[in-house]
Amino acid sequence: MTETAFDDTVVIEGGHVLTPDFEVREADVLIDRAAGVVLDVDDDLDGDETLDATDSLVMPGLVNAHTHVAMTLLRGYADDKPLDSWLQEDIWPVEAELTPEDIRVGTELGLVEFITNGITGFADSYFEVPEIAAATEESGLRANLCHAFISVGKDDEGARADAQEGLDIAREFDGAADGRITTALMPHSLTTVETEYLEEFVPQAREAGVPLHFHANETENEVGPIVDDHGVRPLEYADDLGMLTEDDFLAHCVHVDETEIDLLAETGASVIHCPASNMKLASGIAPIQEMLDAGVNVGLGTDGAASNNDLDLFDEIRDAAMLGKLARGDARDVAAESAVRMATEGSASAIGLPVGELEAGGVADIAVVDFNAPHLTPVHDYVSHLAYAVRGSDVRHTICDGEILMEDREVKTLDEATIREQASEHAADLVARAE
Amino acid sequence: MTETAFDDTVVIEGGHVLTPDFEVREADVLIDRAAGVVLDVDDDLDGDETLDATDSLVMPGLVNAHTHVAMTLLRGYADDKPLDSWLQEDIWPVEAELTPEDIRVGTELGLVEFITNGITGFADSYFEVPEIAAATEESGLRANLCHAFISVGKDDEGARADAQEGLDIAREFDGAADGRITTALMPHSLTTVETEYLEEFVPQAREAGVPLHFHANETENEVGPIVDDHGVRPLEYADDLGMLTEDDFLAHCVHVDETEIDLLAETGASVIHCPASNMKLASGIAPIQEMLDAGVNVGLGTDGAASNNDLDLFDEIRDAAMLGKLARGDARDVAAESAVRMATEGSASAIGLPVGELEAGGVADIAVVDFNAPHLTPVHDYVSHLAYAVRGSDVRHTICDGEILMEDREVKTLDEATIREQASEHAADLVARAE
Ligand SMILES: [Zn+2]
Ligand SMILES: [Zn+2]
Repeated sequence: MTETAFDDTVVIEGGHVLTPDFEVREADVLIDRAAGVVLDVDDDLDGDETLDATDSLVMPGLVNAHTHVAMTLLRGYADDKPLDSWLQEDIWPVEAELTPEDIRVGTELGLVEFITNGITGFADSYFEVPEIAAATEESGLRANLCHAFISVGKDDEGARADAQEGLDIAREFDGAADGRITTALMPHSLTTVETEYLEEFVPQAREAGVPLHFHANETENEVGPIVDDHGVRPLEYADDLGMLTEDDFLAHCVHVDETEIDLLAETGASVIHCPASNMKLASGIAPIQEMLDAGVNVGLGTDGAASNNDLDLFDEIRDAAMLGKLARGDARDVAAESAVRMATEGSASAIGLPVGELEAGGVADIAVVDFNAPHLTPVHDYVSHLAYAVRGSDVRHTICDGEILMEDREVKTLDEATIREQASEHAADLVARAE
Repeated sequence: MTETAFDDTVVIEGGHVLTPDFEVREADVLIDRAAGVVLDVDDDLDGDETLDATDSLVMPGLVNAHTHVAMTLLRGYADDKPLDSWLQEDIWPVEAELTPEDIRVGTELGLVEFITNGITGFADSYFEVPEIAAATEESGLRANLCHAFISVGKDDEGARADAQEGLDIAREFDGAADGRITTALMPHSLTTVETEYLEEFVPQAREAGVPLHFHANETENEVGPIVDDHGVRPLEYADDLGMLTEDDFLAHCVHVDETEIDLLAETGASVIHCPASNMKLASGIAPIQEMLDAGVNVGLGTDGAASNNDLDLFDEIRDAAMLGKLARGDARDVAAESAVRMATEGSASAIGLPVGELEAGGVADIAVVDFNAPHLTPVHDYVSHLAYAVRGSDVRHTICDGEILMEDREVKTLDEATIREQASEHAADLVARAE
């Protein structure tokens, strides 16, 4: 982003292009690498460098709008357990042992996985954010990062220090990596951060100009206590605290009623749907079609790898479409295009990232998906395949901010082999320390 | 299977092996290609030929126990529609135009997809079975094949002719392809074949020594009419007609009550769970954990590609585990091992195929899964990854009956590139004829 070099262009050649209005047409795509934008989408374009897109679809990069990326180290460590015992017996004891180096390696592993799956942007919440920011900068991806803070189970000093760290991190890293990194303030959830700390810190997020990102209404257990203590539904409580604006994004929202859906629509706050995590932890099915009908902006997230167990957002596209139909027993609900839009423009606008758009002037955040595969043959409808048949391994090239992060399945910005080896070692050591 | 050549052995070298009791250990696997069996599982074995399995898991081949393989030609042709209008407006008009050549090409495409996804056996029901059998023989896969017959909407002559074709096909192809092909009699469902034809033809299937394969209780619409007409639940009706024995297998069983689950357990009839199809068509969630608890044998199927939309049984393993948790809101239900066992021994024993077993004397139906990938790093638990993170594209080698069907992602028995090209052409022509 520092110099402008008009001769530094890349042409993505010979593919089909998914336009912003979800039409598919044969065209080349010319990118200005330095400016990170699409210069032209047309026939027979020339560039300094060429990326082959024969039999491929050139589409906006996917955006994973809710994850805890360093949890890759705990992938498959504990499964098939109810949320409470899973957290208390398995996840938290191991997380207590995580070092900054573990977080760095786990993050790098997750970012490699993102790039190989065509993900160009993400929203993360965890701790040791400086490590996560450093890995993100190196990777070439865009991200909204935050330090998740909790007050429950802490004394006032501890609670305030944790929230303050969240605020400090949000201020420090907003605009990092040449603007590719933005931040949020994350009160972990409405039941793990007490009212007084929300009242104190939410206004400071507004002053700092950063959005709120928080877990909301994931399980029934998060609804009952709020109704008992405050006499209103959780999202009414959040709204009373000024926590719902069009900049804010709420993960899950599985157990929301009509009033809460209307509140989301009115305030413009976004929902990040995490269907795989909601299934695996038996949380329930979020009423996504009702949200879309009400005009709520919905993005998609993988949540952490420990409750998924991979970071392939094409799974979430498929899960969103599939579960959407089960929710009300109507096969028309959450149709293919809706699900794909959630993973691209829905997620991007939810977390405040630019949307990759395949038209002149669009941001060059792009995934090139290879359709030359038996499970993608024949092609009656590209968008149907994106929703129901494409998997992350079909992504051939990944581009973010004009930079080629993966070419022909080879990750360029991170050293995949070394990271995998280090991650295996760190994971084994971590578990040995915790057990 | 004709000659025994003791010098014709393959060693799968340097991998981890999933044993029949679901332990994982480092070992080589020695196969007799001609006999199609595993000779030994041990350290440092030698063979005439070597398949590398470094960083890989050697496991039983997956078995897709309910599919309509030629429907690959309709993959993505129509989505997001309720079952009735989807069939009547989209699928049936196109199926009416299918030629034997279309069926052949569509089947070949599906078989390529099976092989690339580590599937070594399947149960199919469709029409133009001789074409399906010929493609199966060529592919090297195992299969149980049948012609699905229907009586509703036909006169007596037409209905009887269709059922007779089902019976003739079952007799003719049972034991084909050196025994790799077996057959079933398939009355399409309990509501599309009237009682008199079931009474006439089911006993003839018993005489012919072939099992029954049929759709049962897929939607509520299949339950009500049976209860109205016969005063009993559909599976009670089926049992009264002698349609539930330990050889028989029933696709779907989404809407079954406790009495019906008990009946399945008592008779030993198997259920083929098709979770992706049940989501996509908004059919509902089958009570799989209840079935497993009652002792019912459950296998997994993709159903046809038009309601899935791919033929990657690792998706169904994941879906089964995920939906199993949602069904009763209990994250312990349908745990990873249960889901993987359904796709291997559950499916194989349901449809009467031998189970691939990694021990001396076991049948050499094997998938070798490459774990050298970011989404499969680290490995805390191989079986967890098989359920929640592996995708078909991670399969490196596929072996059936001792024959190597895919080596390092290259399909050996079918010409993938030519088949894909032909399938695209046939699909385009087909749709043009139908529209
Ligand atoms: Zn989360
Ligand atoms: Zn079927």
